Amino acid sequence: MAEKLVKEITSMDEDFAKWYTDIVTKANLIDYSSVKGCIILQPYSYAIWENIQKTLDGMFKETGHTNVYMPMFIPESLLQKEKDHVEGFAPEVAWVTMGGNEPLAEKLCVRPTSETLFCEYYAHTIQSHRDLPKLCNQWCSVVRWEKTTRPFLRSREFLWQEGHTAHATAEEAIAETERMLDVYADFCENYLAMPVVKGRKTESDKFAGAEATYAIEALMHDGVCLQAGTSHYFGDGFAKAFGIQYADKNNKLQYVFQTSWGVTTRLIGAIIMVHGDNSGLVLPPRIAPTQAVIIPVAMHKPGVLDKANEIYEELKKAGIRVKLDDSDNSPGWKYSEYEMKGVPVRIEIGPRDMENGVVVVARRDNGEKQTLPIENLSESIAALLEDVQKGLFEKAKARRDEMTYAVHNTDELKEITESKNGFIKMMWCGDEACEKAVKDTYGVGSRCIPFEQENIGDVCPICGRPAKHMVMWGKAY
Amino acid sequence: MAEKLVKEITSMDEDFAKWYTDIVTKANLIDYSSVKGCIILQPYSYAIWENIQKTLDGMFKETGHTNVYMPMFIPESLLQKEKDHVEGFAPEVAWVTMGGNEPLAEKLCVRPTSETLFCEYYAHTIQSHRDLPKLCNQWCSVVRWEKTTRPFLRSREFLWQEGHTAHATAEEAIAETERMLDVYADFCENYLAMPVVKGRKTESDKFAGAEATYAIEALMHDGVCLQAGTSHYFGDGFAKAFGIQYADKNNKLQYVFQTSWGVTTRLIGAIIMVHGDNSGLVLPPRIAPTQAVIIPVAMHKPGVLDKANEIYEELKKAGIRVKLDDSDNSPGWKYSEYEMKGVPVRIEIGPRDMENGVVVVARRDNGEKQTLPIENLSESIAALLEDVQKGLFEKAKARRDEMTYAVHNTDELKEITESKNGFIKMMWCGDEACEKAVKDTYGVGSRCIPFEQENIGDVCPICGRPAKHMVMWGKAY
Repeated sequence: MAEKLVKEITSMDEDFAKWYTDIVTKANLIDYSSVKGCIILQPYSYAIWENIQKTLDGMFKETGHTNVYMPMFIPESLLQKEKDHVEGFAPEVAWVTMGGNEPLAEKLCVRPTSETLFCEYYAHTIQSHRDLPKLCNQWCSVVRWEKTTRPFLRSREFLWQEGHTAHATAEEAIAETERMLDVYADFCENYLAMPVVKGRKTESDKFAGAEATYAIEALMHDGVCLQAGTSHYFGDGFAKAFGIQYADKNNKLQYVFQTSWGVTTRLIGAIIMVHGDNSGLVLPPRIAPTQAVIIPVAMHKPGVLDKANEIYEELKKAGIRVKLDDSDNSPGWKYSEYEMKGVPVRIEIGPRDMENGVVVVARRDNGEKQTLPIENLSESIAALLEDVQKGLFEKAKARRDEMTYAVHNTDELKEITESKNGFIKMMWCGDEACEKAVKDTYGVGSRCIPFEQENIGDVCPICGRPAKHMVMWGKAY
Repeated sequence: MAEKLVKEITSMDEDFAKWYTDIVTKANLIDYSSVKGCIILQPYSYAIWENIQKTLDGMFKETGHTNVYMPMFIPESLLQKEKDHVEGFAPEVAWVTMGGNEPLAEKLCVRPTSETLFCEYYAHTIQSHRDLPKLCNQWCSVVRWEKTTRPFLRSREFLWQEGHTAHATAEEAIAETERMLDVYADFCENYLAMPVVKGRKTESDKFAGAEATYAIEALMHDGVCLQAGTSHYFGDGFAKAFGIQYADKNNKLQYVFQTSWGVTTRLIGAIIMVHGDNSGLVLPPRIAPTQAVIIPVAMHKPGVLDKANEIYEELKKAGIRVKLDDSDNSPGWKYSEYEMKGVPVRIEIGPRDMENGVVVVARRDNGEKQTLPIENLSESIAALLEDVQKGLFEKAKARRDEMTYAVHNTDELKEITESKNGFIKMMWCGDEACEKAVKDTYGVGSRCIPFEQENIGDVCPICGRPAKHMVMWGKAY
């Protein structure tokens, strides 16, 4: 049978955007549908999402959260209850105006986010301080009618989780906002091998209706920033708009304090752009659908396939997500295919290896090959996967640090922004006019005010007034 | 602190519909939202759904299926590609006509089911016989603009899974249709403890666009039938409408043969109506979010809470989903609460029990109490849970068989349909006119043509012509 052609992708240095598009299609992550701005998550990317879901869901449950499911529709009048919120979202929602052949009495938007629905639910179900805290989460898809879209990074429909919590006090709600940001950062660093900066968004960049928005920011291979997750503190603004009150211990009515937090399938885009290379995807082992692929060499020779199967069974039994490719494609074709798909470890086994009681093992992250004894192979592969996981994080962190620039004045800012992309650390007076000037003149926006502040100057380089914060600036997806 | 009142529910014999509504709200399964016909799945019912998902998803993966995610919107022109399909669904879909503030060039329906989207995807991705079979599944919500709604049984939005497969031959597709019906039956009987009848739907009751629809039918406590899952064989009808072709081994283009199959959150309604009683919900242990609840008695007495915690840890370690309620509500209140919630096993521990090294254990399904030694308690509880699981199935099956009537002529049909609800077995000639006459005159519809046929007569009691099948008839939710 004719072998399929080895797929070629654009070099990332030549055209990063095209490289990205090549990977998402050629690694079979997505397919385009006839619905503009909506993508199909093929089995391979959905399996990555399932691994993300499973891990995060476990972390949410360990921190006391339970899952619920809210309707996907929000009546216009409900969306309008919190003023800032509706202003932020109304321009980009999809409206259902007909049910069957009849026009609806009130139009319904397809949820862009579910604060209003959770508020209505909490108004029904919170009566006493004994009902608090309410710690709910939802896995679903949401819709935002974006004009320009890109697979995983920005689409009209995307999958996400949205946590929504209600607390008796502002302190507890703020602690929750911070705790969930920590959960996200922990997940990104330890599972996706992606270093993140934790910080607060400036006022101009807050979520519609929030008192404070916290975010984790990551740096992609091309030096462009990506907001990887957000956690919002709402104060009692929504509670007042929706009448969510509880009787405290003295039987006095009080408003609750709320939070919400979310991450999306955008994380898959982040994995691609942090770890990928010119041979394709590179997946961190902890999130890879297939952690190791076994490729028999000269597999028609006696005993090769049997041995490959034996190794497969041993690794599987040890809990490694392993695949044996015994299809009739050539080993060379298979090497390219699993490189494209970012499988962390490749195991080659041929007649000569069998004689010597070894296999040849290649790492996807750095291409290193080594010979390993078949004896106790599951243990050595498990250790190798841990090595790869750590190595990917270290490499991404080193690259991120290398592409982070401390800027002390506008000359330096000009030079950096004109010559390269990256994280730019620069002091800021706190005035929105200066933030806007940086964006308009130098093309970089404020990404966040990092929790870990450094004092790299006393004044705002834009206006010369005293600086309040060090801000992380950059171009963003 | 004041104890909440014990919740009361309507007796199921007095008003079954009201009993059902009382349970879904008082066991905190659902809350109503301001979106008519859409319900909120509260943590307790969503946890049941998570258990259903987890088990079924494992069964789907074991049978070679992978998950994907398709867009929630279907352009009108795509929905119209298969004629029977659009006729069946167009009258009951929700239409998105506006994106942000602008009218859409083409209106989009919110998926009522995703055959058309999967067909488009398969048309893109199937080229060769080596791409077959395609075995995909999707977990999502769908929307059908129903006029009358009931929690879990019929709502405008509901959660479900939809499998969609494509095969090289009709035989393979038919085998898949049957295999997945078997998976559903196995799941319903072994996890939900709900006996089902497997069969084929009559022509008038087929899915829109299907060549054959298979279903599993269950009988609720009130003798009304419930379609619990369906599996459809499409032949090559969709393939021809969407141009899904593959090159066979002789490099000749052939159309694929397709199937789809689904179950929904309706299964939660089935659990309620098959097992529930006048004290509330009764959950089969394999699907119960909490399998055993520990209630300390006289918990201020020294050592009681410590012992309760010790038992909790032991059961948890043994993999039992256990909860310890050490709240300040009275034991009596707690008993009612967990009865309402259908927790399969209650474990009471007080000072006297401690002295004797025992606990008192009550089964939710039959109310039986017994004293069990604390030693090896996790083993005895695990065994008891298996007993409860089996007992629930036996009880449901006995009740179902008791409420199944073989009918030989119209006099018997009249007598049965006027006096009781249940499954009615009766022969049928195969003519739709007779099927309609049974429905119009006696108020019972054909539920399915069971795979397990019995010969209970030679003629159709309606027209007197030779009978072709034994049909299961009944009223249905």
